[in-house]
Amino acid sequence: MLFKNITIIDENIVQKNNMYVGIEGAEITLIDNKMPEKDFGTVYDGKGKLLMSGFYNAHAHSAMTLMRGYAENLALQEWLEKKIFPFETKLDSNAVYWGTMLAMAESIRFGIVSSTDMYYFCDDMIQAVLEAGCKNNMGRGVTNFTDADLKDLDSFKEMKYTFENYNQAGSGKIKVDMSLHAEYTSNPKTVMQLAEYTKEIGANMHVHVSETKFEHEACKERNKGLTPVAYLNSLGLFETNATAAHCVWIEGEDFQILKEKGITVASNPISNLKLASGVCNVPKLLKNNINVAIGTDSVASNNSLNFIEEIKVFAISSKEKYGDPTAVTPVEAIRAATVGGAIGQGRTDCGKLKVGNKADLIVLDINQPQMKPAHNLINNLVYSASGSDVVLTMADGKVLYENGEYKTIDIEKTMYEAEKAAEGILKQL
Amino acid sequence: MLFKNITIIDENIVQKNNMYVGIEGAEITLIDNKMPEKDFGTVYDGKGKLLMSGFYNAHAHSAMTLMRGYAENLALQEWLEKKIFPFETKLDSNAVYWGTMLAMAESIRFGIVSSTDMYYFCDDMIQAVLEAGCKNNMGRGVTNFTDADLKDLDSFKEMKYTFENYNQAGSGKIKVDMSLHAEYTSNPKTVMQLAEYTKEIGANMHVHVSETKFEHEACKERNKGLTPVAYLNSLGLFETNATAAHCVWIEGEDFQILKEKGITVASNPISNLKLASGVCNVPKLLKNNINVAIGTDSVASNNSLNFIEEIKVFAISSKEKYGDPTAVTPVEAIRAATVGGAIGQGRTDCGKLKVGNKADLIVLDINQPQMKPAHNLINNLVYSASGSDVVLTMADGKVLYENGEYKTIDIEKTMYEAEKAAEGILKQL
Repeated sequence: MLFKNITIIDENIVQKNNMYVGIEGAEITLIDNKMPEKDFGTVYDGKGKLLMSGFYNAHAHSAMTLMRGYAENLALQEWLEKKIFPFETKLDSNAVYWGTMLAMAESIRFGIVSSTDMYYFCDDMIQAVLEAGCKNNMGRGVTNFTDADLKDLDSFKEMKYTFENYNQAGSGKIKVDMSLHAEYTSNPKTVMQLAEYTKEIGANMHVHVSETKFEHEACKERNKGLTPVAYLNSLGLFETNATAAHCVWIEGEDFQILKEKGITVASNPISNLKLASGVCNVPKLLKNNINVAIGTDSVASNNSLNFIEEIKVFAISSKEKYGDPTAVTPVEAIRAATVGGAIGQGRTDCGKLKVGNKADLIVLDINQPQMKPAHNLINNLVYSASGSDVVLTMADGKVLYENGEYKTIDIEKTMYEAEKAAEGILKQL
Repeated sequence: MLFKNITIIDENIVQKNNMYVGIEGAEITLIDNKMPEKDFGTVYDGKGKLLMSGFYNAHAHSAMTLMRGYAENLALQEWLEKKIFPFETKLDSNAVYWGTMLAMAESIRFGIVSSTDMYYFCDDMIQAVLEAGCKNNMGRGVTNFTDADLKDLDSFKEMKYTFENYNQAGSGKIKVDMSLHAEYTSNPKTVMQLAEYTKEIGANMHVHVSETKFEHEACKERNKGLTPVAYLNSLGLFETNATAAHCVWIEGEDFQILKEKGITVASNPISNLKLASGVCNVPKLLKNNINVAIGTDSVASNNSLNFIEEIKVFAISSKEKYGDPTAVTPVEAIRAATVGGAIGQGRTDCGKLKVGNKADLIVLDINQPQMKPAHNLINNLVYSASGSDVVLTMADGKVLYENGEYKTIDIEKTMYEAEKAAEGILKQL
């Protein structure tokens, strides 16, 4: 496939007009400013279009689309205990499969090519992801409220099973991450044992960190003043490539630890605002050269996977919270949404329009009133584009979505089955 | 026109399924749960669609679309003085006309039927609004840095001319508001004289209030501790129906004054976040039964007119800032976006799906992954919908936009001319 005469955002997040981008198999093999002689097959007319890297959703719980708009206007504990947890006890393979398929449909519609997930029924989720043609770093969050050894925990057994059966599935589209749910849902022994196992198998780590002030302060009380970041680090959890989700309340030495250990911080700006958890200090993270990525968190607390909206809120909420309209530039925001997320997922050949990289690409229709005038398309992309301006989504060189048409997903069936599964659960409650 | 078998959000912001809504001329004349015998002409199949009131944008500077993405990552004063003001000195009739037409195209694409504007070249703006078929409350913000009487000010003369020539134009689609730019760009004599004139002619008032902390505190220093709200009120500015835009830093007695005077507060959440001005205390305004509406502010500081995005940010930014995830419910947010704005505009027969009201309506496509499952469509509308889910926009019973097609605007010409006008100005700078 050849994108012809198209505006691109290049690997340095610089706009270039009238470019030619060639795809062979799963790879980008040509980026040039003139028509190649070589035949790339299908030619895509780039007039009025913008081509860029797809988005990498750095923190998600995909199957929770089933709970979209189900529980609103509740305080966090009430929301979790009266609504979310009871709903989740009724989940089954079928519901999780269709919830995940719905999330994949919404993801590719909004330009997300890959998601870092933490949930359960991981094999059902992976099945949906593979059928949809998306990429995913799947994690089964380990929790432990007992004295049991890691190896005896059901959550660990599921994670191990998932890793052994699905890691690198779909020609590497699927990566299975190790995952600790959080400090407050585990204990030091579990953290240490999981850290050791993760290092041994060389997997990525994915963990919730300092989402709420309560959680952050309670950790310090329980652990001799250690913050979640310091506590988890002291137990060796950050010895592999890791994603720390949220990091709203990190402080002091936390920044130093995150930097030294090369941790990716997945900021979830919309969920954090909506649940009144706070605003991640993205300006300070960037100043400390910490890799920042953007996550949607679950649809139950967002309530969409509209990634362009997420990028805008990522930038503007930081500006207000930290009192600086110059903080978090459009270029920094796009970097976080693309290569920042890919790094967190351990995908070193993704997230940039670069020859040799995987062809995980999106096309936006920029011939629309909200994108005019085009003084600067990078500014317009971050602040003016609508999520639905994405008109083509491609992963590993395969078109998944184009102009409202899903190439891999039966969208009507998916919406019907997801709705039916959600209704079925409600009937049991 | 008859909307057949459609889901609606009714005048009490309650979802009703399988409804029939009939339009005759500019009015809604039927809302029923069964097919009427009467022939309403064109029948619109409501399957998979949601019908509701259009949006009322309570604070805008429409022609500033020309500056979209033109100046980013600057502190407020630098942004204004080095970028916005120099650009504005080069504006002319043609540029303002096309900038406004572009804003109208974007507005109706995102479901806005009416905007409260403050700018200049008001007659050019009104021409574009009328051609587009939109509604507008146009104001020419009065400023005065001299000792001159109100009647001798150019800004006042322009406003008076606009009022006398255009108020109630387009069968009432156009209302001309009186407008004071702000406390810090005028003086007590001007405020008093304008207040008197406004009361005399019975027009609406539109004024910027307490947008930034600096402005708010400087007003108190200048005026014996009086806040902008208290100062303007003491000079009689709030004796007619009025919109106070921003109100980010209001405090103490301000809430009481706004309530007693029946002032509409136009919150501009995205612009306020992006410029790091702060977050309006919407929860407290609502608690005090003050009418709250939602504005986009200008595209130069937003940078779009995506109103569904604005509604979402309106709700979630308040939740975080004021530490309460239960604050600003979806119903309250929809009320602010519709009837709240209409009240501010002095349009008592607008903003609600109600027999006898003006047919200012929008239709959303809800048969999309981001709107499923539909546990609660009002929650989904506020938190999950994409701005582009609007598939039909109607003002005074006339369809302005349907499925990507503009009925009143030559969209290609508008985008071309707006871009050309912006480029022309850049060349002069």
